[in-house]
Amino acid sequence: MRMVDLITKKKEGEILTDEEIQFMIDGYVKAEIPDYQMSAMLMAICFKGMTDHEMAVMTGAMAHSGDMVDLSAIEGVKVDKHSTGGVGDKTTLVIAPIVAACGGKVAKMSGRGLGHTGGTIDKMEAIPGMKTSLPREEFFDIVNKIGLSVIGQSGNLAPADKKLYALRDVTATVGSIPLIASSIMSKKLAAGSDSILLDVKTGSGAFMKTLDDSILLASKMVAIGEHEGRKTVALITDMDIPLGKAIGNSLEVIEAVHTLQGNGPEDLTSVCLKLAANMLHLTGMGDVETCEQMAKEAITSGKALQKLIDMVEAQGGDSRVIKDTSAFAKAPLNYEVRSDREGYITHMNTEKCGIASVELGAGRATKESVIDYSAGIILEKKIGAYVKKGEVLATLYAADEKMFADAEKLLLEAYTISEEKSVIEPLIFARVSKEGIEKYS
Amino acid sequence: MRMVDLITKKKEGEILTDEEIQFMIDGYVKAEIPDYQMSAMLMAICFKGMTDHEMAVMTGAMAHSGDMVDLSAIEGVKVDKHSTGGVGDKTTLVIAPIVAACGGKVAKMSGRGLGHTGGTIDKMEAIPGMKTSLPREEFFDIVNKIGLSVIGQSGNLAPADKKLYALRDVTATVGSIPLIASSIMSKKLAAGSDSILLDVKTGSGAFMKTLDDSILLASKMVAIGEHEGRKTVALITDMDIPLGKAIGNSLEVIEAVHTLQGNGPEDLTSVCLKLAANMLHLTGMGDVETCEQMAKEAITSGKALQKLIDMVEAQGGDSRVIKDTSAFAKAPLNYEVRSDREGYITHMNTEKCGIASVELGAGRATKESVIDYSAGIILEKKIGAYVKKGEVLATLYAADEKMFADAEKLLLEAYTISEEKSVIEPLIFARVSKEGIEKYS
Repeated sequence: MRMVDLITKKKEGEILTDEEIQFMIDGYVKAEIPDYQMSAMLMAICFKGMTDHEMAVMTGAMAHSGDMVDLSAIEGVKVDKHSTGGVGDKTTLVIAPIVAACGGKVAKMSGRGLGHTGGTIDKMEAIPGMKTSLPREEFFDIVNKIGLSVIGQSGNLAPADKKLYALRDVTATVGSIPLIASSIMSKKLAAGSDSILLDVKTGSGAFMKTLDDSILLASKMVAIGEHEGRKTVALITDMDIPLGKAIGNSLEVIEAVHTLQGNGPEDLTSVCLKLAANMLHLTGMGDVETCEQMAKEAITSGKALQKLIDMVEAQGGDSRVIKDTSAFAKAPLNYEVRSDREGYITHMNTEKCGIASVELGAGRATKESVIDYSAGIILEKKIGAYVKKGEVLATLYAADEKMFADAEKLLLEAYTISEEKSVIEPLIFARVSKEGIEKYS
Repeated sequence: MRMVDLITKKKEGEILTDEEIQFMIDGYVKAEIPDYQMSAMLMAICFKGMTDHEMAVMTGAMAHSGDMVDLSAIEGVKVDKHSTGGVGDKTTLVIAPIVAACGGKVAKMSGRGLGHTGGTIDKMEAIPGMKTSLPREEFFDIVNKIGLSVIGQSGNLAPADKKLYALRDVTATVGSIPLIASSIMSKKLAAGSDSILLDVKTGSGAFMKTLDDSILLASKMVAIGEHEGRKTVALITDMDIPLGKAIGNSLEVIEAVHTLQGNGPEDLTSVCLKLAANMLHLTGMGDVETCEQMAKEAITSGKALQKLIDMVEAQGGDSRVIKDTSAFAKAPLNYEVRSDREGYITHMNTEKCGIASVELGAGRATKESVIDYSAGIILEKKIGAYVKKGEVLATLYAADEKMFADAEKLLLEAYTISEEKSVIEPLIFARVSKEGIEKYS
């Protein structure tokens, strides 16, 4: 078998066989197939696509290119969640405790933030003493005992994806549905859960700019998951609004705690309940409506908050900051960004909000950047609000006054304020499962 | 400027600017742009194409990536010829002397054969003592003195093309019109002639399988040549018939000599007169018909043959083999391939004929192969002939009896013999110049 012949086949729109796909992924991981052949193949895939079967086989080959995490030491149905990237997305810190409180098992490996998006692991490390790297046995023990644990990715998960992702990034082959779907799903398959909930973002800042494309991507990922024997559901959510008000690590943990206390922002609470309900549904706890009721009760009973406290303690963190969020270290300086005009907020550029938070020290511009956990933004006004000139849009938190100017400029650019009343979009646009597509409007 | 952004532009069907194309070619030659980015770009070009302007700019950048041969030391209008590859194509050895006999200047750099196609330099080296590598000044002197010289490519001509060609070969990006056109034309531009005649082959064994594609490729190359200030004309010729009867180095030189003596095969003579006429036309010697008359007279007067003798002597060769072709060393063995059925010859697979000649020792299977100059094939029957069972189709010449079996098998496969009378195609299908396309039928 020769890679050049496989490239020719794909270029001419033919379908690759299972053996050919396996040969290609194996050869690439072993560096027997050079980058320059793989990049030509990736570009041909961008133009000619892949069938659902090709995609599933490629994803399986990518997942099996490294360690396949074996979660069988954990009792019950293990459920995982993946988000295609968001700004101010602290949902994992809310949902995982809810699911655990209702009897689900969440053994989750999360990532760190880079660029304008944050990462759950960074948020957890804002909690003093919190360990995000644990030996596999201890990780399993915690999940068995309390129902949840979230740690950083460890081991050699889907190395084919790591190598392919780095290549896609520099060869303009990132935005192809089969390549995005196989990349995300290969990691989720390797991470070992029985069922997977996908949070697929749509909108101007997301991979997929239109609802149709987002639904298509979601359908492909659901098909891959089900092909590999994992129950998979996807919710299509709005990328064009930061969830909740907080962007920045400590600020987001505090907001997650408030949400678990029943006092969170309405949008965040609503999305978290839907996500949690779908995860519970995936673990076989009933229909989505019943599960949403269970999720609500986990909040009102305080059981979900207790699960977060349990996890923090089990992972060596200081739970006092959870029990009393005022105990979190605060940023020494703050600055109020005020509206330069009057009108309705009709759009928010979440990417610019994210970059503004990085400017304040809350994120990583490069892999080597050091994070200031207390830095960030509280968005006082969001889409739908009417603001007067001079009214506070957001409060910035940072350690150095010099950081405010750039962040303020970005934030003012991020808000679109107009005379016409804003159209409020639903937070969740659609749900995709193997049964089909449900659109909400 | 970042290569990844240029790949994105091309992938999305946008047009690259002159500066972007220059950046891309320069960066690739300097190895600042890696193969894996260039191969993604090449694949995007395969799908999205290039405008005539982009193609011309890229070709110019590729030509200027190395030495630009300066032929100004040669007086008069210098005319070059390029063929897109053929089997048994000895036209250069006939045409260059005709053009020189009529007052044109041919300072030609030719290639060696590889795979199933032969190279003019190998054919010349079948002449004892013939030098095909000369210092530039000596090369110019010969052309000034006698009107022609043919040598091997020397110097660093179009290194961008060498590097790109090697990459295209292993990334399934060979068969794209903008890439083929820029590859051929970059070398021709660098070789320095004022005007260029292109012999574009069409048919089952050629880059371009259909007449329409061949005309398209020819039009693009003519546009590039004219954009760069070179007068350029292309003839579309038939790849599906080997020109003349001889395949193999000495055998082809002998056939070229016979043609210059006015005793060559009809098809070869006819094509050579057309090619020579167009080259003379390009040097400003009159309309194509007038030039064809001049070319015929150069043969009947014996002046063209004398030019070949002059060139052989000027380049150190033994002209006795030209004056008396029986003086060429002969292959020790020959073998007659006989038809296994009766009927009309309706098609010939020239590629298989070429491979058969390589099997006999006449060509190079790899770059390191040593050529047997006396080996080869004389095709006794060609398309249009009616053959009886047992009649001789071809005579094989080789140094070793063991070589005959494989070559015979290939040759029998190469001939299609059927009960229906063959359709005789014209030898030249079309002529493409900046004035437009003329089809012959």
